[in-house]
Amino acid sequence: MTTRVMLLNGPNLNLLGERDSQVYGSRTLEDVESAFVELAAELGVEVVTAQSNSEGVLVDRIHEARSLDGIVINPGAYAHYSYAIRDAVEAVRVPCVEVHISNIHAREDFRHRSVISAVVDGFICGCGVYGYELALRALIKRIEEKKAGPLAAS
Amino acid sequence: MTTRVMLLNGPNLNLLGERDSQVYGSRTLEDVESAFVELAAELGVEVVTAQSNSEGVLVDRIHEARSLDGIVINPGAYAHYSYAIRDAVEAVRVPCVEVHISNIHAREDFRHRSVISAVVDGFICGCGVYGYELALRALIKRIEEKKAGPLAAS
Amino acid sequence: MTTRVMLLNGPNLNLLGERDSQVYGSRTLEDVESAFVELAAELGVEVVTAQSNSEGVLVDRIHEARSLDGIVINPGAYAHYSYAIRDAVEAVRVPCVEVHISNIHAREDFRHRSVISAVVDGFICGCGVYGYELALRALIKRIEEKKAGPLAAS
Amino acid sequence: MTTRVMLLNGPNLNLLGERDSQVYGSRTLEDVESAFVELAAELGVEVVTAQSNSEGVLVDRIHEARSLDGIVINPGAYAHYSYAIRDAVEAVRVPCVEVHISNIHAREDFRHRSVISAVVDGFICGCGVYGYELALRALIKRIEEKKAGPLAAS
Amino acid sequence: MTTRVMLLNGPNLNLLGERDSQVYGSRTLEDVESAFVELAAELGVEVVTAQSNSEGVLVDRIHEARSLDGIVINPGAYAHYSYAIRDAVEAVRVPCVEVHISNIHAREDFRHRSVISAVVDGFICGCGVYGYELALRALIKRIEEKKAGPLAAS
Amino acid sequence: MTTRVMLLNGPNLNLLGERDSQVYGSRTLEDVESAFVELAAELGVEVVTAQSNSEGVLVDRIHEARSLDGIVINPGAYAHYSYAIRDAVEAVRVPCVEVHISNIHAREDFRHRSVISAVVDGFICGCGVYGYELALRALIKRIEEKKAGPLAAS
Amino acid sequence: MTTRVMLLNGPNLNLLGERDSQVYGSRTLEDVESAFVELAAELGVEVVTAQSNSEGVLVDRIHEARSLDGIVINPGAYAHYSYAIRDAVEAVRVPCVEVHISNIHAREDFRHRSVISAVVDGFICGCGVYGYELALRALIKRIEEKKAGPLAAS
Amino acid sequence: MTTRVMLLNGPNLNLLGERDSQVYGSRTLEDVESAFVELAAELGVEVVTAQSNSEGVLVDRIHEARSLDGIVINPGAYAHYSYAIRDAVEAVRVPCVEVHISNIHAREDFRHRSVISAVVDGFICGCGVYGYELALRALIKRIEEKKAGPLAAS
Amino acid sequence: MTTRVMLLNGPNLNLLGERDSQVYGSRTLEDVESAFVELAAELGVEVVTAQSNSEGVLVDRIHEARSLDGIVINPGAYAHYSYAIRDAVEAVRVPCVEVHISNIHAREDFRHRSVISAVVDGFICGCGVYGYELALRALIKRIEEKKAGPLAAS
Amino acid sequence: MTTRVMLLNGPNLNLLGERDSQVYGSRTLEDVESAFVELAAELGVEVVTAQSNSEGVLVDRIHEARSLDGIVINPGAYAHYSYAIRDAVEAVRVPCVEVHISNIHAREDFRHRSVISAVVDGFICGCGVYGYELALRALIKRIEEKKAGPLAAS
Amino acid sequence: MTTRVMLLNGPNLNLLGERDSQVYGSRTLEDVESAFVELAAELGVEVVTAQSNSEGVLVDRIHEARSLDGIVINPGAYAHYSYAIRDAVEAVRVPCVEVHISNIHAREDFRHRSVISAVVDGFICGCGVYGYELALRALIKRIEEKKAGPLAAS
Amino acid sequence: MTTRVMLLNGPNLNLLGERDSQVYGSRTLEDVESAFVELAAELGVEVVTAQSNSEGVLVDRIHEARSLDGIVINPGAYAHYSYAIRDAVEAVRVPCVEVHISNIHAREDFRHRSVISAVVDGFICGCGVYGYELALRALIKRIEEKKAGPLAAS
Repeated sequence: MTTRVMLLNGPNLNLLGERDSQVYGSRTLEDVESAFVELAAELGVEVVTAQSNSEGVLVDRIHEARSLDGIVINPGAYAHYSYAIRDAVEAVRVPCVEVHISNIHAREDFRHRSVISAVVDGFICGCGVYGYELALRALIKRIEEKKAGPLAAS
Repeated sequence: MTTRVMLLNGPNLNLLGERDSQVYGSRTLEDVESAFVELAAELGVEVVTAQSNSEGVLVDRIHEARSLDGIVINPGAYAHYSYAIRDAVEAVRVPCVEVHISNIHAREDFRHRSVISAVVDGFICGCGVYGYELALRALIKRIEEKKAGPLAAS
Repeated sequence: MTTRVMLLNGPNLNLLGERDSQVYGSRTLEDVESAFVELAAELGVEVVTAQSNSEGVLVDRIHEARSLDGIVINPGAYAHYSYAIRDAVEAVRVPCVEVHISNIHAREDFRHRSVISAVVDGFICGCGVYGYELALRALIKRIEEKKAGPLAAS
Repeated sequence: MTTRVMLLNGPNLNLLGERDSQVYGSRTLEDVESAFVELAAELGVEVVTAQSNSEGVLVDRIHEARSLDGIVINPGAYAHYSYAIRDAVEAVRVPCVEVHISNIHAREDFRHRSVISAVVDGFICGCGVYGYELALRALIKRIEEKKAGPLAAS
Repeated sequence: MTTRVMLLNGPNLNLLGERDSQVYGSRTLEDVESAFVELAAELGVEVVTAQSNSEGVLVDRIHEARSLDGIVINPGAYAHYSYAIRDAVEAVRVPCVEVHISNIHAREDFRHRSVISAVVDGFICGCGVYGYELALRALIKRIEEKKAGPLAAS
Repeated sequence: MTTRVMLLNGPNLNLLGERDSQVYGSRTLEDVESAFVELAAELGVEVVTAQSNSEGVLVDRIHEARSLDGIVINPGAYAHYSYAIRDAVEAVRVPCVEVHISNIHAREDFRHRSVISAVVDGFICGCGVYGYELALRALIKRIEEKKAGPLAAS
Repeated sequence: MTTRVMLLNGPNLNLLGERDSQVYGSRTLEDVESAFVELAAELGVEVVTAQSNSEGVLVDRIHEARSLDGIVINPGAYAHYSYAIRDAVEAVRVPCVEVHISNIHAREDFRHRSVISAVVDGFICGCGVYGYELALRALIKRIEEKKAGPLAAS
Repeated sequence: MTTRVMLLNGPNLNLLGERDSQVYGSRTLEDVESAFVELAAELGVEVVTAQSNSEGVLVDRIHEARSLDGIVINPGAYAHYSYAIRDAVEAVRVPCVEVHISNIHAREDFRHRSVISAVVDGFICGCGVYGYELALRALIKRIEEKKAGPLAAS
Repeated sequence: MTTRVMLLNGPNLNLLGERDSQVYGSRTLEDVESAFVELAAELGVEVVTAQSNSEGVLVDRIHEARSLDGIVINPGAYAHYSYAIRDAVEAVRVPCVEVHISNIHAREDFRHRSVISAVVDGFICGCGVYGYELALRALIKRIEEKKAGPLAAS
Repeated sequence: MTTRVMLLNGPNLNLLGERDSQVYGSRTLEDVESAFVELAAELGVEVVTAQSNSEGVLVDRIHEARSLDGIVINPGAYAHYSYAIRDAVEAVRVPCVEVHISNIHAREDFRHRSVISAVVDGFICGCGVYGYELALRALIKRIEEKKAGPLAAS
Repeated sequence: MTTRVMLLNGPNLNLLGERDSQVYGSRTLEDVESAFVELAAELGVEVVTAQSNSEGVLVDRIHEARSLDGIVINPGAYAHYSYAIRDAVEAVRVPCVEVHISNIHAREDFRHRSVISAVVDGFICGCGVYGYELALRALIKRIEEKKAGPLAAS
Repeated sequence: MTTRVMLLNGPNLNLLGERDSQVYGSRTLEDVESAFVELAAELGVEVVTAQSNSEGVLVDRIHEARSLDGIVINPGAYAHYSYAIRDAVEAVRVPCVEVHISNIHAREDFRHRSVISAVVDGFICGCGVYGYELALRALIKRIEEKKAGPLAAS
């Protein structure tokens, strides 16, 4: 059966390419989603994409991902305080990789900590929009391991 | 000219495969280094590998990396307090990606923060030993961008 | 005139019965709401039920409760940071009892504090889904006292 | 066999009805104990009541409760610092519900946290002396679940 | 070309005039918006008004303001934790003045800090609903300076 | 009777126009005082101006303002630690508006908090020297409300 | 009617004169009590004295003081953590002056704060055993003021 | 030789009797100084009185007290942050008693700590203006002990 | 003259052997005391044993130890907050070794710190009930050194 | 088979006997090692001793101890921050007892906490160099228990 | 043109030589100023000296130094809280070296941090009054570098 | 006998001249050592120089300095956490001056505090590489004072 994953982007990421390009680069969200879907297709994976500025909608989307095999999420600023999103990720028990475009550890204090990071399988930041590709690879690896079962742990 | 990178592992990583396998998996450091070198070769990149339990030796190695194109570093527990390693990474101005095998945000409090993370180009954790491969890809991407110069930023 | 109250559930509580059953039990939200409405009916009280994953919608619902006699709210993870919900509860000046299924004091640090708890009339946690029934009783008691006026305080 | 529970009140609760009635209401401890025993009798439960201003005596009483089925405790101000009482509750492994008359989250900072709350089965505050009745119901529910065994968890 | 600004009000401000009048005064949100529009008209400025209890909707509105010349925002309680709104204000790079009706420094501890205030151009609080008028004047001043360019800084 | 107010400037504000113009603008204190007096005259208000680098002198001036109708104060760096000035403002019970030229929330950590702000009627920052004009308007509004008495509160 | 007060000493004060004399002086508790009773007699006041190392007993004694006119208490180390004693002092609503022999602000960090001090009428420390005499005078003054009623406040 | 002491009052105490009388009472500074001088005379002690709103002047006055036998100081709000006054008191090595009219431990958080208190001989607060009289008695006691030398310590 | 020591156990240690045996082992307090007395006898030392759940009684016991040569104390949970016990240990100036059965540094945060440990001669934890034997040996060593006088320090 | 243990001393302990003898006593490291080896021989245990000022060398030594039965370690100042040593101790899963000559809880604040203590089996401090002997005894006890298996736990 | 510098001393430094000589040495301020002027003369530099106990006067003096080439300042206790002096030093943009006679890092906690140190060019402490000479040398070096311009940086 | 001192440089200082020249200047470590030795020769002092990136080697070097008269140390980033180096400096009881090239108080938060500074005789920072010369002078002064004995203290 085909592996299906969700690419979920949080608040202000719809402005990608327009917002401060020194931090976030010049590619738009559409570019990022296209590249993600393309790589996924090469690797035999289907993608559902979504973006929302609303915490509640993001929780809804994560709930929907229960019927999928994994999630790549860039929670944007919600990373720093949304325990509701954290609870959603934990509750759905679907492999999840968190990605941030910039190096959040090198920016303002409030960005150093992601309250979501403790419940995800992988965490990637500072690699620019290329981080989405790494996150996809990490997620697929994780899904494969999960399917292989506990014996195949590495 | 061939791209050359250093794979640097910190304290206790020589015990990989032996140390708690639930957290770190069953592969040895040798396995990890081999896989890293192999992938690098496929991508046309040469690798220098090193491991040390000594903070001072790690600083020395980072200094030696000035003649290379980049560093993938797993600083182990030094991540949480070694400002000397942080200074070394910052001083050599060589692209650097930090990697941790486990999800440090999901373990003891003292592991949640890496004092080195603020000066690296990319940060990856929680992806198991597969994270080394992702780190290598992220590093190469970063080296290419750097060579392309500021105009090619994305 | 019939007493009318709102039963309001916050983020991820729509997953009740599915989410980690060791913490939250095996009953669904529908089960909980039915039992609540049933007990209320026995006690001569009408109920409006609502659930949302969105902070803004929860604020809207609390505003609507101005035309009712009281609120039982399980704010889920919003309990830990939603000053908007706190302000809403405080603004509508309707008796309100906060309930949590699990004992939030025995879980992760960030769950130990509810920013809403300072403005509610009663607070109940750790009693499982049975806590909703206790909350209803506490709310009705509070409504009766309020109707009886300051002289009947006990 | 008849269910038997202890109602244990801590420091200054012997002044109930006399102490600031705006916070604690006008009923005396005797009133509260009578109402508690009465409701318990209706529910087929026997009660042992005790009050002490001494931390050590409260620890002793909790130890005695090992021969009973459960405890309802209002630890008064000891809630905020008595790790000895916390240890006693944890050691005796008897179902226990903590109750406070006032909403401790709405008062001085030092009252916001109960060091005992992490080891109790249920926690109720802000419901006035009516909270004792709710605590009794919660305790009986918990005792029933325990008797029913792990299969009946809800 | 006519200057056009947005007046954006956050959670619970739809209850203005009804909510505690000792703190917020007796005028409704409609009154406030009318007075704001009227003054703006006198000063030759057009106004778009919006209110929402939802963080995500507020982020959306701020994004829409990219086609306008400025924003007056009263973020209500979101001021104290919404890094998503902060990011939105920072991302759109449109002049923005933050206003609070009450003196947030004289109230509960959690209200003393606005996480948004670091990215706005002006900040006004404690002046009652009259603060909106001051905010409008401050915003227009800021827009004029911006149009005049760096040379006209004062 | 004519309304009379004091314009009080604290330490280092005598260097206005000379000190870092990127933060404080290029206008001198004399310019600012003149503009303030002029606007006040238009609004039928008399002004007493004063500046001092000394905390004690500022306290003295505030005491003198007991015979006036209000104070606009820019306490400069004393804002961040002078409880003596705070006490003086509170003691004289004269309407008072605090103003800062720069946005203190966007600068060094120690500037984020004004210990005086909790006892003033209005607080304005980040609006440049134009903030003095806004402060004057806010003060006059406050004086009028006070004269109108509690019934006219808005 | 004769004024009657309690002199209450807490833990380890029974060792007075024996314990480190550089800090506490060489007079025994008996000496201190005698001098206290003697001065009281001169001032027409009767004294009940008590000492206990037990927190619970001290709470009991404070409750007994409800039939007296005032309390002078040296809570010893309980000053630093006994919220039970604090609650007792607050509950009995009897004038109370707290005294410490040594200057607690000049000793170890944990002694700098008395959790009881916020609910007493007067607080004296660092005056040696002479502080008891000062406390008695302060207490009598306070009792007189209370009897004179609110009009005679000074 | 006659004992001579200084009575030193800090910022805003010149407003005594005028400032919030619920906290500070209705007597003026003049009243307080007169009563102080009168009691001192009865006890055979001469007094120099001084008041200043300026930290620097208070330091100067303390330096002048080197030619006197002791100091009673009410540092007002400077108590909470003036390390300069603390250093002055410590440097002059003259017996010193600190007094506050109100109970600083029962007011705002920032008033709970006096940075000066660690270097004084006695500390009295919460006894109203009567505290000055107690402070004088404590100071004289301390001066006598000092004159009697280390052998007479009590 | 025979060396005589006290073995003092604090709250909940009377439940030893019954309380969680994974943490505390399966031996009862009686077993522990017997083994302790037996070893002491072998080493020519007499023992007084005592246990209490009451802080005040423990203080009393420590005072009684003034006529003995040393104390081995397991203060149980009082270790974490009883400054009264700390003061008692410090006041009696008798050699004292503190012992905990479990490794308190490896358990809940509140157990990491013993407020008593700063005034004892030796501190032992994590060695199980065997720690009592080590504590006895350490205490005897300390007593011998003390008797030998300062010259024999090692 | 003979039991073999490592005695490992950290930074500055090579100065033993020379460094402040009031704190550390007058015996040299050689003396301490000899006494340790001698007692071990009596108890039928072989010892490997090592000392290093280098964190990395200490980690190496701990790794070598995998072929031994246990470790007695005095980590010196590394105790307070070396997470690398902590990780090493945890990784090798060899019984380990930590010892400090002085009572670290009674010295500077930074010495109160050992980050290593949470992963050792026993912890002893304040018993002077005699603590090494106690540590050896505790370690042997722990090794015996481990060999006896889980059934013999006490 | 002759280089001219200011030597500015803060509160309590007028007591130099009299104040605790163990910490500050036995030389008077006059001695220190003379030695400073003498060395300056040898190095061809003119000196203006000033001392004040008043924060405001120190700010005034720093403003006057705008016509000089540099400042050596010993801010005394103001170092620990005077943001007004910090702002003055930053505003005048004149080279400035801060000096403290004692090693402030080895004294009370509140002395460990100088809020001024972040805006000075050099910082020297713990070298006794000889530190003034070092500060003068450092200042002259800095002035020379500044005159030489950015090219001569070393 | 000739005075002999050690110049000890810590981690990353071997990169001097290469590392960020805006912060550290353009001179190499060799240049700095040469200038240091030269000045020392002029002042009749011999120098031993050493640099290491290893904490352990630095501790070893400090131990070797026991045969010398003093140490000038730039501990680099170890300054911020190496209690092992602190202990070494304290243990050898040799005069020691700490120097930093940049003003550590004006950089990242983690650089504001040196844990070593509390045990050195002098502390100099922000004076560029010229600070080494000042440190040498300060050290020689300190050595002379020490040789002159306590009577010559200044």
